[in-house]
Amino acid sequence: MFGPPTLTKGSSQVIVPPTLDSSRGSPIAAARHRRFAMPEFFTVRTPPEAWRLFSQHFTPRVRMARIPTVDALDRVLAEALTSPQDLPEFPRSTVDGYAVNAADTYGASPSLPAFLDVIGEMPMGRAADLHVGVGQAVLVHTGGMIPAGASGVVMVENTQQVDAAGIEVLRPVAEGENVIQVGEDIRQGDPILAPGHTLRPQDIGGLVALGITSVAVAEAPRVGIVSTGDEVVPPGRPVLPGQVRDINSYTLAALTRRAGGAPTLYGIVPDQRPALVATLTQAHAENDLVVLSAGSSVSYRDLSVEVIAELGRPGVLAHGLSVRPGKPTIIAVCDGVPVFGLPGNPVSAMVIFDLVVAPAIRSLLGAPRVYAPQVSARLARNLASAPGREDYIQVRLETRDGETWAVPVLGKSNLIYTLVHADGVVQIPLDAGGLREGVWVTVTLH
Amino acid sequence: MFGPPTLTKGSSQVIVPPTLDSSRGSPIAAARHRRFAMPEFFTVRTPPEAWRLFSQHFTPRVRMARIPTVDALDRVLAEALTSPQDLPEFPRSTVDGYAVNAADTYGASPSLPAFLDVIGEMPMGRAADLHVGVGQAVLVHTGGMIPAGASGVVMVENTQQVDAAGIEVLRPVAEGENVIQVGEDIRQGDPILAPGHTLRPQDIGGLVALGITSVAVAEAPRVGIVSTGDEVVPPGRPVLPGQVRDINSYTLAALTRRAGGAPTLYGIVPDQRPALVATLTQAHAENDLVVLSAGSSVSYRDLSVEVIAELGRPGVLAHGLSVRPGKPTIIAVCDGVPVFGLPGNPVSAMVIFDLVVAPAIRSLLGAPRVYAPQVSARLARNLASAPGREDYIQVRLETRDGETWAVPVLGKSNLIYTLVHADGVVQIPLDAGGLREGVWVTVTLH
Repeated sequence: MFGPPTLTKGSSQVIVPPTLDSSRGSPIAAARHRRFAMPEFFTVRTPPEAWRLFSQHFTPRVRMARIPTVDALDRVLAEALTSPQDLPEFPRSTVDGYAVNAADTYGASPSLPAFLDVIGEMPMGRAADLHVGVGQAVLVHTGGMIPAGASGVVMVENTQQVDAAGIEVLRPVAEGENVIQVGEDIRQGDPILAPGHTLRPQDIGGLVALGITSVAVAEAPRVGIVSTGDEVVPPGRPVLPGQVRDINSYTLAALTRRAGGAPTLYGIVPDQRPALVATLTQAHAENDLVVLSAGSSVSYRDLSVEVIAELGRPGVLAHGLSVRPGKPTIIAVCDGVPVFGLPGNPVSAMVIFDLVVAPAIRSLLGAPRVYAPQVSARLARNLASAPGREDYIQVRLETRDGETWAVPVLGKSNLIYTLVHADGVVQIPLDAGGLREGVWVTVTLH
Repeated sequence: MFGPPTLTKGSSQVIVPPTLDSSRGSPIAAARHRRFAMPEFFTVRTPPEAWRLFSQHFTPRVRMARIPTVDALDRVLAEALTSPQDLPEFPRSTVDGYAVNAADTYGASPSLPAFLDVIGEMPMGRAADLHVGVGQAVLVHTGGMIPAGASGVVMVENTQQVDAAGIEVLRPVAEGENVIQVGEDIRQGDPILAPGHTLRPQDIGGLVALGITSVAVAEAPRVGIVSTGDEVVPPGRPVLPGQVRDINSYTLAALTRRAGGAPTLYGIVPDQRPALVATLTQAHAENDLVVLSAGSSVSYRDLSVEVIAELGRPGVLAHGLSVRPGKPTIIAVCDGVPVFGLPGNPVSAMVIFDLVVAPAIRSLLGAPRVYAPQVSARLARNLASAPGREDYIQVRLETRDGETWAVPVLGKSNLIYTLVHADGVVQIPLDAGGLREGVWVTVTLH
């Protein structure tokens, strides 16, 4: 879809003009400066370009942990599993009835039943020294072992007791009927599950059925989350005029958990270079991936990109994504650790998390990129978009005449309650000029 | 859909014939007896009938816990929340630019710009004693407070610096443009979220944005899980001929977690009345709901139904469901605690868990019954069914020509690897005679 990358050294993308006062004494001065310097700062990329560049510079390494299978629900498998044995290991009955030679029952009917001698009962949970000969039957229970010599099981409902030692069979039974054969569930050596598979309840059941009591799973990638902004305060404190409570730390931590990562919050960093350098350096050293939620103001973004660029090589790969909302995004790899600078507004932050951070977390798990459920729905109104830009539209789902419709949530795009009122998100692809009312779209559920 | 129930005393449904040897000395004797007594034991019900009867006898009580909002991801809300304040509490800019009187910019263009005096800058995170008069402008940052007197914000890109104290505005700005008004995100008193809602990342963000730092959530219902069967052994031990490893304890525990419950395993109980009475009595006393996974053999089922019937009033409400797989199901309410006897085979156990146990757990959470994602798909082959019976077919999903198809997983229905190979399940409704290839069906994902 795209040609070979023309640019491989991401760090060369960030040109910090020597005239910029990097201590940011006066935002006015910085803003004035920006009007002239901005084009040099932005290397806006399409999401596929950015992801390709990111993939060239980031080699995810999955850290494995061996844990008990019974604790592995929702964990991502990190090994290929094959069956160590046949399952079942002995032929089992699927019904309550009598194990017989099938041939003894051929032609049996209520008017012309087959008479068989009952020579015993198979106990549950152990073998028994019973052999079903011609004209003989052995009582078996659902799930129990089939005795040697038997080739089928006649259901108890299709028999009639004659005396203490004999039954009449009222219906013929075929060879193998009502029997699970050795290895019929799974055979020794058969592949079971592949790396990257997220373990479900039945997978855990299937593994313990084979005596596989521990599994190698991917450890949750450590994700450091840093907020910045002089106006941002922790949610538990009183808010003064001009201040807003920190939303993104907690939303991003929850999104990280959903993606399979282990978040660590580094708090709210004052909007000053030394503080940001110190916190980002620490987060970079302690995590597999770092997410910075900066203010959306251009002066915040400049400080972020400068500090991220200095964390390691190759540094900033994209500064700006052709996505709405979410254009002011920074994508970097610094000495092997992905660092993402997300826009400050919560809607943009969530869109960009889903678009670039979650796939990076998934790659550190060795897991497929898409993990949120998706549904098809019809779009409830026309949506405009500019070609060359991906748009992400928050929608709620409605059922109309048995069909699911995706109704765009109105309102300014940067309001947190837009997300609270939405059930999912619809992508308008890069080269679509928009989407028409009534078309079927894929909704990725929140 | 159904008339008034004709039967309100569920306990009268279980008639234990006095001739039954309840100590079960000989399974042969029990099995022989069964052929005559069986009709009295079974009160087979359709799932809707069983659920209606169950609902009449079970009054779920949601236990609440107050926890920090930031720890409430995926928990079920147990209170109605309304907004304690307007959000935002002050008008905020959505761009970097200049707060102005919109009227001052009317008619402005690059060839005829409006000249404004810049009287200062709004700092981030605090109020400032600035008032924008006629012909004046104040520098504002994205997310920052709009000063008094201003009615719109002109983007910095649409201005030009003239000198240290003046700018030219190159484009008019409308009243309210680039401003989020007080309460535009959410207003004081507006409903936010209703009880029963499962908290998502953005909900946590929306709550902390309002300073709601703790929430009442439903405590996870305690679910006791009991396995029985003389042939069933723990998965970590060597298996002798005739023995099988315990699958259901772990599959049911994982399914319980997925539904929002907190499972406790009571181990594998020998198939003897005193042991089963002791364990079920303890599990009944210690949990909000009890699940018994018994063998599918009729003798196991009889013992189960007898012991469950004695746990409390009204006792057994359904013994047998018109469902395939899963007919040998026991539904009981014993002194206010639901007790479910599930078939021993893992496929039936999972189908019945989803059908009756999960909805009971959800009711104890005050949450909607359906929680697993569902997708639409076209059925890849004809499926037969008997009217008057619900069928549940395990399917895997395939994409063909951009459409999703549900391909039934072949094989005997009671094999655990049927579930491992399946992506979800399709219901054939009670009164459908089957489903035709190509029809659209709803697949509930595993």
